[in-house]
Amino acid sequence: MKKVDLSFQSCKSEYKDSDVVIFSAPLDLTTSFRPGTRFAGNHIRIDSVGIEWYSPYQDKSLKDYNTCDIGDLEMPLGDLEGALDVIYKTTKKIIEDKKTPLMIGGEHLVTYPAVKALIEEYKNLHIIHLDAHTDLRDEFLGMKLSHATVLRRLYDLGAKIYSFGIRSGDKHEFEWAKEHIYLRKFDLETLDEKVNLLKDKPVYITIDLDVLDPGVFPGTGTPEPGGIQFKELLQALELFRNLNNIVGADIVELNPLLDSSGASTMAAIKALRELILLLHK
Amino acid sequence: MKKVDLSFQSCKSEYKDSDVVIFSAPLDLTTSFRPGTRFAGNHIRIDSVGIEWYSPYQDKSLKDYNTCDIGDLEMPLGDLEGALDVIYKTTKKIIEDKKTPLMIGGEHLVTYPAVKALIEEYKNLHIIHLDAHTDLRDEFLGMKLSHATVLRRLYDLGAKIYSFGIRSGDKHEFEWAKEHIYLRKFDLETLDEKVNLLKDKPVYITIDLDVLDPGVFPGTGTPEPGGIQFKELLQALELFRNLNNIVGADIVELNPLLDSSGASTMAAIKALRELILLLHK
Amino acid sequence: MKKVDLSFQSCKSEYKDSDVVIFSAPLDLTTSFRPGTRFAGNHIRIDSVGIEWYSPYQDKSLKDYNTCDIGDLEMPLGDLEGALDVIYKTTKKIIEDKKTPLMIGGEHLVTYPAVKALIEEYKNLHIIHLDAHTDLRDEFLGMKLSHATVLRRLYDLGAKIYSFGIRSGDKHEFEWAKEHIYLRKFDLETLDEKVNLLKDKPVYITIDLDVLDPGVFPGTGTPEPGGIQFKELLQALELFRNLNNIVGADIVELNPLLDSSGASTMAAIKALRELILLLHK
Amino acid sequence: MKKVDLSFQSCKSEYKDSDVVIFSAPLDLTTSFRPGTRFAGNHIRIDSVGIEWYSPYQDKSLKDYNTCDIGDLEMPLGDLEGALDVIYKTTKKIIEDKKTPLMIGGEHLVTYPAVKALIEEYKNLHIIHLDAHTDLRDEFLGMKLSHATVLRRLYDLGAKIYSFGIRSGDKHEFEWAKEHIYLRKFDLETLDEKVNLLKDKPVYITIDLDVLDPGVFPGTGTPEPGGIQFKELLQALELFRNLNNIVGADIVELNPLLDSSGASTMAAIKALRELILLLHK
Amino acid sequence: MKKVDLSFQSCKSEYKDSDVVIFSAPLDLTTSFRPGTRFAGNHIRIDSVGIEWYSPYQDKSLKDYNTCDIGDLEMPLGDLEGALDVIYKTTKKIIEDKKTPLMIGGEHLVTYPAVKALIEEYKNLHIIHLDAHTDLRDEFLGMKLSHATVLRRLYDLGAKIYSFGIRSGDKHEFEWAKEHIYLRKFDLETLDEKVNLLKDKPVYITIDLDVLDPGVFPGTGTPEPGGIQFKELLQALELFRNLNNIVGADIVELNPLLDSSGASTMAAIKALRELILLLHK
Amino acid sequence: MKKVDLSFQSCKSEYKDSDVVIFSAPLDLTTSFRPGTRFAGNHIRIDSVGIEWYSPYQDKSLKDYNTCDIGDLEMPLGDLEGALDVIYKTTKKIIEDKKTPLMIGGEHLVTYPAVKALIEEYKNLHIIHLDAHTDLRDEFLGMKLSHATVLRRLYDLGAKIYSFGIRSGDKHEFEWAKEHIYLRKFDLETLDEKVNLLKDKPVYITIDLDVLDPGVFPGTGTPEPGGIQFKELLQALELFRNLNNIVGADIVELNPLLDSSGASTMAAIKALRELILLLHK
Repeated sequence: MKKVDLSFQSCKSEYKDSDVVIFSAPLDLTTSFRPGTRFAGNHIRIDSVGIEWYSPYQDKSLKDYNTCDIGDLEMPLGDLEGALDVIYKTTKKIIEDKKTPLMIGGEHLVTYPAVKALIEEYKNLHIIHLDAHTDLRDEFLGMKLSHATVLRRLYDLGAKIYSFGIRSGDKHEFEWAKEHIYLRKFDLETLDEKVNLLKDKPVYITIDLDVLDPGVFPGTGTPEPGGIQFKELLQALELFRNLNNIVGADIVELNPLLDSSGASTMAAIKALRELILLLHK
Repeated sequence: MKKVDLSFQSCKSEYKDSDVVIFSAPLDLTTSFRPGTRFAGNHIRIDSVGIEWYSPYQDKSLKDYNTCDIGDLEMPLGDLEGALDVIYKTTKKIIEDKKTPLMIGGEHLVTYPAVKALIEEYKNLHIIHLDAHTDLRDEFLGMKLSHATVLRRLYDLGAKIYSFGIRSGDKHEFEWAKEHIYLRKFDLETLDEKVNLLKDKPVYITIDLDVLDPGVFPGTGTPEPGGIQFKELLQALELFRNLNNIVGADIVELNPLLDSSGASTMAAIKALRELILLLHK
Repeated sequence: MKKVDLSFQSCKSEYKDSDVVIFSAPLDLTTSFRPGTRFAGNHIRIDSVGIEWYSPYQDKSLKDYNTCDIGDLEMPLGDLEGALDVIYKTTKKIIEDKKTPLMIGGEHLVTYPAVKALIEEYKNLHIIHLDAHTDLRDEFLGMKLSHATVLRRLYDLGAKIYSFGIRSGDKHEFEWAKEHIYLRKFDLETLDEKVNLLKDKPVYITIDLDVLDPGVFPGTGTPEPGGIQFKELLQALELFRNLNNIVGADIVELNPLLDSSGASTMAAIKALRELILLLHK
Repeated sequence: MKKVDLSFQSCKSEYKDSDVVIFSAPLDLTTSFRPGTRFAGNHIRIDSVGIEWYSPYQDKSLKDYNTCDIGDLEMPLGDLEGALDVIYKTTKKIIEDKKTPLMIGGEHLVTYPAVKALIEEYKNLHIIHLDAHTDLRDEFLGMKLSHATVLRRLYDLGAKIYSFGIRSGDKHEFEWAKEHIYLRKFDLETLDEKVNLLKDKPVYITIDLDVLDPGVFPGTGTPEPGGIQFKELLQALELFRNLNNIVGADIVELNPLLDSSGASTMAAIKALRELILLLHK
Repeated sequence: MKKVDLSFQSCKSEYKDSDVVIFSAPLDLTTSFRPGTRFAGNHIRIDSVGIEWYSPYQDKSLKDYNTCDIGDLEMPLGDLEGALDVIYKTTKKIIEDKKTPLMIGGEHLVTYPAVKALIEEYKNLHIIHLDAHTDLRDEFLGMKLSHATVLRRLYDLGAKIYSFGIRSGDKHEFEWAKEHIYLRKFDLETLDEKVNLLKDKPVYITIDLDVLDPGVFPGTGTPEPGGIQFKELLQALELFRNLNNIVGADIVELNPLLDSSGASTMAAIKALRELILLLHK
Repeated sequence: MKKVDLSFQSCKSEYKDSDVVIFSAPLDLTTSFRPGTRFAGNHIRIDSVGIEWYSPYQDKSLKDYNTCDIGDLEMPLGDLEGALDVIYKTTKKIIEDKKTPLMIGGEHLVTYPAVKALIEEYKNLHIIHLDAHTDLRDEFLGMKLSHATVLRRLYDLGAKIYSFGIRSGDKHEFEWAKEHIYLRKFDLETLDEKVNLLKDKPVYITIDLDVLDPGVFPGTGTPEPGGIQFKELLQALELFRNLNNIVGADIVELNPLLDSSGASTMAAIKALRELILLLHK
């Protein structure tokens, strides 16, 4: 007679026994169009019974690894800085305990405090970033910390950025990108080269799921037509197996309020399973 | 750093410390129209953050009581008898441990094994039954055990039945009812009298949420127009405060697949909160 | 091995053997807000398995009567006059064959050709009309024949009109009504008196389902808040048992495209079952 | 060849010619459960073609009055104080121009800056408040300004509060209410008395549409079962005709993301039409 | 004045005159995630007016062939073996009458009794199987007969299996497959070769529509991201024109409860039209 | 304090200052399956805040051009010829004022009056037509003017037709096409050649958005599986940059009633942004 356990799929290990720790960050405060990503974590959890624990892509099974799911972080809802601090401290603690963090957003801004914690440990941190949007504004609607500025803030932290699939942004963002980061427009080409380059570097992977075409992933606040297919995302995930030092990862921007069929939630679930298996080297 | 806890609202006590034990029975095998009630338990859990723990109706708060939520029972999905047996044994164990069971369906058939366990303890068990449907067929589509026969089976177990709100059934069910049980058609009138009568008797309360009008509760497999308002259900719940010996209860037939706005789920959540507080005398 | 039969519930008699004939008129050409009522007939048919054939309100069963369902009329879709003519001729034929017509709309304009056929047989025809809207404009958007003018056209045909539940219309419609027809605003009060008055007169019943509150019946093109409950509609249907000469009836304005839960469709189905049983004296 | 005009229904006057000014405040930053009310204003605008300009309740027509709709306010999205200031200044300007403000939320917090502007003009301001929730917390999740504290903040500003329909809140809120404001639980009884009392006082009306039962109004972030019917809201609006000095009003908490049938949006539209006509004495 | 005929598109021949016979099997008893496929047949029927009877892919028209649609089989709902027996007997009868069966599921388990009947006639039966899932478990949740074991059961019957598009299953299923059947992971490559090989063999085609990517086909109980495009399915169907002896076919796993836009239903309808034309050699 | 301005994205110029004029034609009278395209214009307007004004495809920004949005045309709803005449006259006026018209449908028939006005100015008009359907019937359901005949009518006006992506129609339409127009089945191949051919000719572009696969664009009345991806549409739009004389354009057949996630509306918005930028040479 044990308390209900709604951990992601078969990731039911205790924290102390785990190598990978899943948490969700229910934040969508700076969302400019349709909010709701705060509900992603728990919808992913309860629908994760709909997927197998075995991946035929990696020939690995969730059952063979120790993963803990600590659930939604408790965050002061209206207090942006307070909320980001909770994510920062959680990530910090996980790293200190020699475990790998895997975060479910929330809006994309959640990546900022996670990377902030990681870069203190890994000075030479590289970011592989899949997204529809540049997220490179210096400020957005008067705010320095926003889903639309998050990659710029990661750059400010000293991370090296490699963006792929980008098809939306303001003109000056694309121009700024040319001089400061690597940015691949529209698709994932050259990802193989860059993965090869980063083979032994510490790498953080952040996947804004709206990099997928809205046909595949309608359940997101700001769908941007013309994206990649799920098979292309799977190929990217396969490429990541060549990275020897992935120090953390996240998937962000699933909005369950906009996913009446549940298919977008399942896309997030499958991406998450593959990421978990990737993180368990 | 603890594992995710998605217990209903603030019902986060451990089993051993609890007086009331919530569990959900994800069964919808005999559903004849639109299935999906198997998902009710977890949808109720994750949306229960949207309700206050304090009830202004009973002037009581969930925070002041020890309640444990053990989640969805693990049931052999395609095996009806096996599934019912899991419910029976779980209920049995809870009673033996001197706790009160509170079940979330699933289809209405889940009430059968729960009552079967209870009646072994309380020979003189009375059932208060709110529902749109008679559920009194002797068999349905060739089956003795079905959502459409469940009240008949409770009668066979020896329970005394008091049905209210009934507005759908076959002619012979209504005729059989006249001779064997108490059945109030269309509304909840006379419920006060019957509650008074059962004041000190052991009573089990089973609420098929489709007793509510589909305007109030569209998220159910077999909506039956012409039902009661939620305020009438609240009045019934207030009446139940006069029962001194409620030995268990359930709510059944929420189908989250048919609840795009989430309002039906919230109706179930509010009814559940009131029931929990009722069970904590 | 017979062809698929998707007749309404158990109304599976052949035309020649039937006393009541159901047909649906898939017309929504003059709808001014959200179209889609053309799909009502077939959605009602396929969901009608979700209701019992027995009515505890009338203590009668569909199984005990001969009813034929001839399905959607084939209508020249873009040709309004042609479409209305198909309805007229179908109704005419049914009357000539000494059967009672029961029509499923479509938009409310479908009532016009049906009444036109009936009034040729019953000069002294009275209309009982439940609706949210007056539908009494003399013309609408330049058209004489429109969902918004249909009751005015019935008046022009010579029918006596008794409208109930009306809560929307232009000022001049309410003023015209005072001098030409009986119109009860907002609710069904006085329906009992009027039914008594029309006891032995030939009566046609037309139920625009948007007379129901949108809480109960959201699945309609022009929801008008502040309507009646389904129980009130059931009470009206019970009153109609005092009418000794109902010569036809219809229900209109269900829009299945706006009924994601199916609850509005079920409301139409239940109203239809009661009407069928009423027509079988 | 004029630019698109999507003003509410027939409220197409220029600002300078108008007596009543509609604006919408697309704010849902402090929403704790399901956000999306920021979209209410424009959804109300585009669906307002689905309602008549004439009200049979008040026997008045929107066409006979000059009303201007200035649309969504432009607000710094992530900056709560900045956003509230925009509402404050807009309301202030409207009052200074001797016009009456009518606001569409957004979350309920938008009422705070509007009342702040009004109370500078009307020291003796009274608030009639229809809502499911107390909104009387002193702070919520660490914030003084929140949808859950808004009525408490209005009290702090010096307004006299009369709350009706309240059925959710924390225990201490109900207790605080007893000593500081008038609060009617569960329904609108005594509203007539209070309206009589406030007959000649300056009154601001704030309607949180979730005072309606979720059956009637599912399209809201935090549905609370057991609310009032739309007819009861209409009766309240009729009572308000006895108020001789309504100085402003708002409706809040429609969430179009949760309103797949459009019926909740139409409820907001009808309430808004009645309020506009009320404000035009 | 004939009874309603809701046969698929223009497939309105009588049974005795037909070469191909369509039926639907409303079974979803063993579905482990989201049930509802039982409604596929009738939703396909009523929406089939939305497709042309002419196929520009095959340059053939439904109007030029005699096809009968006998509708949903009547099955004892809760009785799995009884239900399967109805499918078996129906298929048997159709074969005996020298007609070709074309079945609409229902869950994938419906394929078992159909193939059982066919293999009695065609000892040397080959199965072409398009699916996201292996369906090769020996038992699932304790059951031998399940949607998750159906291909294994077909193997047990003696059929030769050729699976394509498979991207989900347990590890041991993939391993078993290597030794006992032909299984192509992830896509349809090599289908041309295999079709060539089976050119003159008796072939049964079973299409689990979840082989399609959930972007294309969200309306299914267990969506599995990373599937094929509809154009690839069309190419497969074109390849099947090289098969000279197709003895039956089915499409399964459409769940209309999860298809709010109707696009998945239309995908099933188009696949069905192409299959009908394929079966009419 | 200006009236609400819900012009498309940043297209807020006055008519007299604009080079391109957007209008929407809310017509869906001849729609044979699921109507609702009349709502496309305003849904596109209010959701257009969700897209950037800068196009990384064309490296151009809406902000750098003068575009006016005059909104929904006021059309006599039930009067087909009257409605078409409004479109004709509006287009005529725009051309006379030396501006370029850009129309949002409505159903595809709206293209007819627009082209009629344009061909009076550009005798040698060529039409590039992307669509799933031929639309080449000579009449449909007895009507000469219909969504299903519109391209045939354009041919009758003297326009030269180049159709791409066509995958649905009756056999005789495909045969007629072979002799009278250019028609590319199933995809957009050869579009580059044809664009090259039409380089300096006056060209009108009409995009029926159902040319997209329903996976990408489910929000349309008659989805036709097997269409193009959004990236292919973007490539077509890039090709159109080689056209030196685009004299007008339209996008048609978005049905917001069928777009619960909003992703189809966003596809229309993005296509529209690209078209606006194309028209501003």
